[in-house]
Amino acid sequence: MNGENLTMLTDFYELTMANGYYLQGAGEQIAYFDLFYRKNPEEGGLAIMAGLQPLMEYLQALSFTEEDISYLRSRNIFDERFLDYLKNFRFSCDVWGVPEGTPIFPGEPILTVRGPVVQAQFIETMALLLINHQSLIATKANRIVRSAGGRSVMEFGARRAHGASASILGARAAYIGGCDGTSCTIVEQRYGIPAMGTMAHSWVQLFDSEYEAFDKYAQLYPGNCTLLVDTYDVLKAGIPNAIRIFDKYRPRGKGIRIDSGDITYLTKNARKMLDEAGHADCKIVVSNSLDEYLIRDMLLQGACIDSFGVGERMITAKAEPVFGGVYKLVASEEEGVVVPKIKVSENVEKITNPGYKKVYRLYDKDTKQAFADVIALADEIPPSGEDYPIVDPYSTKKYKKLNNFEARELLVPIFRKGQPVYTSPDVKEIRSYCLQNIADLWEEILRFENPHRYYVDLSVPLWDLKTRLLEAYA
Amino acid sequence: MNGENLTMLTDFYELTMANGYYLQGAGEQIAYFDLFYRKNPEEGGLAIMAGLQPLMEYLQALSFTEEDISYLRSRNIFDERFLDYLKNFRFSCDVWGVPEGTPIFPGEPILTVRGPVVQAQFIETMALLLINHQSLIATKANRIVRSAGGRSVMEFGARRAHGASASILGARAAYIGGCDGTSCTIVEQRYGIPAMGTMAHSWVQLFDSEYEAFDKYAQLYPGNCTLLVDTYDVLKAGIPNAIRIFDKYRPRGKGIRIDSGDITYLTKNARKMLDEAGHADCKIVVSNSLDEYLIRDMLLQGACIDSFGVGERMITAKAEPVFGGVYKLVASEEEGVVVPKIKVSENVEKITNPGYKKVYRLYDKDTKQAFADVIALADEIPPSGEDYPIVDPYSTKKYKKLNNFEARELLVPIFRKGQPVYTSPDVKEIRSYCLQNIADLWEEILRFENPHRYYVDLSVPLWDLKTRLLEAYA
Repeated sequence: MNGENLTMLTDFYELTMANGYYLQGAGEQIAYFDLFYRKNPEEGGLAIMAGLQPLMEYLQALSFTEEDISYLRSRNIFDERFLDYLKNFRFSCDVWGVPEGTPIFPGEPILTVRGPVVQAQFIETMALLLINHQSLIATKANRIVRSAGGRSVMEFGARRAHGASASILGARAAYIGGCDGTSCTIVEQRYGIPAMGTMAHSWVQLFDSEYEAFDKYAQLYPGNCTLLVDTYDVLKAGIPNAIRIFDKYRPRGKGIRIDSGDITYLTKNARKMLDEAGHADCKIVVSNSLDEYLIRDMLLQGACIDSFGVGERMITAKAEPVFGGVYKLVASEEEGVVVPKIKVSENVEKITNPGYKKVYRLYDKDTKQAFADVIALADEIPPSGEDYPIVDPYSTKKYKKLNNFEARELLVPIFRKGQPVYTSPDVKEIRSYCLQNIADLWEEILRFENPHRYYVDLSVPLWDLKTRLLEAYA
Repeated sequence: MNGENLTMLTDFYELTMANGYYLQGAGEQIAYFDLFYRKNPEEGGLAIMAGLQPLMEYLQALSFTEEDISYLRSRNIFDERFLDYLKNFRFSCDVWGVPEGTPIFPGEPILTVRGPVVQAQFIETMALLLINHQSLIATKANRIVRSAGGRSVMEFGARRAHGASASILGARAAYIGGCDGTSCTIVEQRYGIPAMGTMAHSWVQLFDSEYEAFDKYAQLYPGNCTLLVDTYDVLKAGIPNAIRIFDKYRPRGKGIRIDSGDITYLTKNARKMLDEAGHADCKIVVSNSLDEYLIRDMLLQGACIDSFGVGERMITAKAEPVFGGVYKLVASEEEGVVVPKIKVSENVEKITNPGYKKVYRLYDKDTKQAFADVIALADEIPPSGEDYPIVDPYSTKKYKKLNNFEARELLVPIFRKGQPVYTSPDVKEIRSYCLQNIADLWEEILRFENPHRYYVDLSVPLWDLKTRLLEAYA
């Protein structure tokens, strides 16, 4: 973002459709779109919402320059009246979104857009791009942070990120998911997310000896003297040299970093050597293609690690680098009345939930834990009372009756007639909010393997509406 | 890129090291770094170089603003003399690079940087980020294009890309790898790469019937009347409606797009129905989570397809979303003499090739095919003559003697003392160059499974130097 005009970062069909709607006088027809996803990454139990604040920036900056109009004219398929309309384009939709850092689940709207179809359709590409990417990375980072069991996790992925914004907004998303900081300088400058780093192998190589390289570094950075000990031989050279340096300078912040080899074996031995030399306060940092599975395994094997630097497998979500959010038309308005729309598919999970809807998260009044989300039509009375019935969206009408809960709305107003009505919290607050929300979830949902499925059910009126619309196409 | 200052998109350790070099008066010491990668994506036989032109833009724009300096000062670890130096920072290195679109192989330098260590080190993060990402996507796109056997492949991935630059520069890289165009409008505007697209399901849903939606579209876009036929039922509704429309309007450009279901079955039947109705000239476009394996399988099964829209699996290189390029110190200069440096590792493939080097691609004089690359020290006589000996880098000294070849240098000068000395070709030329280079390779290298390994060997002087340096650390 940051000044770059991304209005034209849109799939070309958004423009051909917009031109079409406009020319038929249907441009101002009110349409409702839902953004939702169908499957948690890596068969996990949840995802983490991210990308809303960058989406707000994009929507506020939407405008077509003279160059944009000239380029479109050069394609010879857009009507001049439509191009005139684009010149004065001003975003005027209503938008509701789930706040960043919130645990989210398949099938529920995480963004709803209401407005003139020509606009509500147009923003599809960037809404998906921003929320898909950032929710993907926040989700992956949260998995990795959970695997580290309270140890610090740093995002180290800039060099393997898919471009500049993947690095910058990816690091922001990783922080939201629970990372403690990033290697990427510009991310601290822009968002106040702590940037950290020590030395590369080249630093060690460029001096005549590893000892000399460490010596110079310790003089420069006594407050954070983390020495990279694996350029030559960790246990025979790196650790002994580090100990000599710690003995000589007694730096305030002591650390060693290991970036290769058998991390469990090396850290166990390094810990022993450091402790015996009186440096029990020396932190051990490890890096090298880590992810939640490797971290869990190393900790089970007794590795002695204080902090993880996680690069490529987090910043690309390597195990599953696609977050499959989609953006679907769910309703239009005819003379002020909402007309629900449905997308039929042979695959039941691809059938959309029709209508203008709200999502409620239900909390047990005793445990305070969230136990189900309910998707309901917007004009229903919010879930409450005794024996409130909900229905599984993927089965024949299977009621469950709920009691003793409190319902909170998940989607909050973000834009009203194109004006922002939501102030994004500081990224540190978003991170705390995320970690608190995760702590409040039932732990069986947090498992990496075979997590419990969190219920996302439909209200009875929504289930009835969906059934009625499906029958009409049968 | 495009105006955004990315100078601070750098790992924080590049700055702590730079500060350290500077304060020791070692900032102007000349160092050599090589960028290379160790493994072809997806066990393939090659990769495609991309990212050079965006890297040139980044290097030319490198500069620290007042805000950057103030932010760095606020960290309280950088010396004021170093911050003064950054204020007047001007990139002054020499850079050699492999032209975009060139097939590249593991172990060979694809970028070499020579200059003051404080600078040559600093650019590591962005050099890796840009070349790793774009080579990854160009390589993946080339695999997909090869699987399509001459049929058109469009890049459709914006909504699943990892941020804005992943979409824009990813689409550029995909085009270099052989795609025919993109869905992403801004990519055409910036690079002249054809942007295309038709309609979304929402277009069909918003009208009272599929027929009416097609009818309106055909009136608007007679030149490219590609109708999305799978909103309700492809064979019972979509194709019959499309045929009625084609009969009614006889549009100049006729197409149908199928985005779900059993593509092989549906396209075979759709082709038959269209042909029987006299629309043999109607193109069949398919999309839906495609990659090279699915495309190959569908074509083997007899699917009738003219054009593929490929999204998430190309724009994220889903099967293997990390291109593991690294940037390693290989030499320094002491009083004008090159002093080679080596990085030792227990893993032989992680041992670096020391020294300032050149890479030669050897072509058979008869077949004109490239058959080996040779990495040699820069001051060697280029490979030529009879019985020219090369050595396998990963084995004991195993000579091979070569004859009847012509050698061409792979790395070309990009910057000389910080000034650009290379003009990047137009992206269309890069694409043609890539496709020609692929056509000139031995076809056994192009296999997806168990490709022949292309030889990247060392000259005898380089092998001897490497052995000598390794013995010194033994």
